[in-house]
Amino acid sequence: LPKSISKVNPSRPLSRFARELRRAWKNLKLATDGEVVVVAVSGGADSVALLLALKELVQGRKIDIEIIVAHLNHKLRGAASDADALWVASMAKRLGCRAEVSTSDIKKRVKKSGDNLEQAARRARYEFLAKVAKAIEAKLILTAHTMNDQAETVLINLLRGSGSGGLGGIEPRRPLTTGSAVTLARPLLSWATRQDTEAYCQSLSIAYREDQMNFDESFTRVRVRNELLPLLESFNPKVIETVVRSAEILREDDAALESAAQRLLEIASDDNESLHGDVLRVAPVALRRRALRLWLAQMRGDLRRIEHAHIVAIERLLASTGSGRVIELPGGATAFRKNGMLRYRPPQKPK
Amino acid sequence: LPKSISKVNPSRPLSRFARELRRAWKNLKLATDGEVVVVAVSGGADSVALLLALKELVQGRKIDIEIIVAHLNHKLRGAASDADALWVASMAKRLGCRAEVSTSDIKKRVKKSGDNLEQAARRARYEFLAKVAKAIEAKLILTAHTMNDQAETVLINLLRGSGSGGLGGIEPRRPLTTGSAVTLARPLLSWATRQDTEAYCQSLSIAYREDQMNFDESFTRVRVRNELLPLLESFNPKVIETVVRSAEILREDDAALESAAQRLLEIASDDNESLHGDVLRVAPVALRRRALRLWLAQMRGDLRRIEHAHIVAIERLLASTGSGRVIELPGGATAFRKNGMLRYRPPQKPK
Repeated sequence: LPKSISKVNPSRPLSRFARELRRAWKNLKLATDGEVVVVAVSGGADSVALLLALKELVQGRKIDIEIIVAHLNHKLRGAASDADALWVASMAKRLGCRAEVSTSDIKKRVKKSGDNLEQAARRARYEFLAKVAKAIEAKLILTAHTMNDQAETVLINLLRGSGSGGLGGIEPRRPLTTGSAVTLARPLLSWATRQDTEAYCQSLSIAYREDQMNFDESFTRVRVRNELLPLLESFNPKVIETVVRSAEILREDDAALESAAQRLLEIASDDNESLHGDVLRVAPVALRRRALRLWLAQMRGDLRRIEHAHIVAIERLLASTGSGRVIELPGGATAFRKNGMLRYRPPQKPK
Repeated sequence: LPKSISKVNPSRPLSRFARELRRAWKNLKLATDGEVVVVAVSGGADSVALLLALKELVQGRKIDIEIIVAHLNHKLRGAASDADALWVASMAKRLGCRAEVSTSDIKKRVKKSGDNLEQAARRARYEFLAKVAKAIEAKLILTAHTMNDQAETVLINLLRGSGSGGLGGIEPRRPLTTGSAVTLARPLLSWATRQDTEAYCQSLSIAYREDQMNFDESFTRVRVRNELLPLLESFNPKVIETVVRSAEILREDDAALESAAQRLLEIASDDNESLHGDVLRVAPVALRRRALRLWLAQMRGDLRRIEHAHIVAIERLLASTGSGRVIELPGGATAFRKNGMLRYRPPQKPK
């Protein structure tokens, strides 16, 4: 069980780690007014460091929040998983934080859903966090993703093939779900490495647990961590920082383009949500494609199974001079051109 | 010396390689009207394949250009370099193309300029190509960069740290220099791999030379090719294509943002080329930073030694409420705020 938590002492100066967290807190414009905040704590070095540094900032009166520790027992390692859950609950108690601990049978979820282990575990965690936040009316959920997680995610997306969306990696702050009033934030993402979180825990003599999430990671992520990143570091020892900074720039680019595409869509739309082909044709391709995606999301409700090829097919339809061509979309909807307008027809119900 | 060039036969159907080149030619909107075109030919598989496929298209009357073969002897491998030059000249002759062959002592250039071997060789090549184009009033220069070159360049830029500009990699078509009327194009870049160029040469029984450029490449590029790309291919066998497609999307994003930033700069500028701080402050960060770069390029003539940190410092100046702060720029110029305007002061000459 954790010892020496008393080293987190209000009269001592803030640690460097806590000062960096405070800076990120300000940059992300996170809660300042006594809000209840749900902190996802697996028991690994990253989440324990986040929790302890938050506690430092609260005790040092640098931020004013009530911390709720949330832990989901994945039940993937039997007694070891149960021990993690007990350890986190005990840690929360010593820190004077309320803890919400629950269990989820990930293996059962995998069988039911067809998700792989990594997807099923992630989905279960976020559902649990959302439930905790809802129950206590929290508006902010924190996870302890680090620069390492970010670099790994960016590289996985590069390997899979991805535009600026995917290459921007994990978002440091976003609504929990589209339109949700609950914010999901990762205040370690832009500055803390795994080494930093481990060193910070060690400086407080906290013997963190081996991270349970390491057991439900994809084969690809483990290989990126153990094979690809070390090779990249042999080219550039600061490659994690380098990739994280590039991802930040790409997220900024993507945000500017998304908002310009939203304006383009408004300009191109008529009252029936058909689009003026001329307006789209003269737009830069990066904006046109984003506007078409936004339009399809609006018409269909989501972009499920919409691929790059569908967007390109609609672009070709716009560029062609002939008439009568119809683009079939997944699920039975179609896009077609009529009188210079791009139109959408929802799936027709069988009679 | 090359044999069997007669296999490039106007009565035979176009090879798949030539058909792909023709498609790229159209997409890049390259010459159609009897133009003289300079083709950089090292003698390696990539440039020989480009040359032969162009010849196929000319003989098949699919494109109407006059091909000038340009070869720069780097003199890095003594007699072998001279033999390459003779081989290329002889090949051009058999194809009925004019050849321009010259020599450049790259080692001497390295000593003089402080460039490394790769930089000096590249600079020498492009200067030579520009000279040839000028002498014969050609408006188009072609190089035989492939998808492999593109993927290597994108990965090198990722390792070095780069936003969407660098991650977009090599441009498939651009003015030879800023404002130049001569176009530099890479018609193999988006579709041909090194394997494709080798296979095409072999299909015509052309025994291409080992590429001289392999001898002046940087250590990093060679390691990316021999160590990094094979590891990435073990994750995704199509990783070269995947990276090339991502780079295309990032170039499209960058083009849309650059043109939006140009408009932002016009809106923000007053008659004295000072910038309205308010206009910049409310713009998305991706546009603001690009507009500031464009402004500095305009005021200084170029962006040499301007780093991300300088742009961020100017942004902070815009965000700050205080007055009197001055940002020192490399070379002695300064940026400062006065009456809500961002102003530029060129380097002051000593009295």
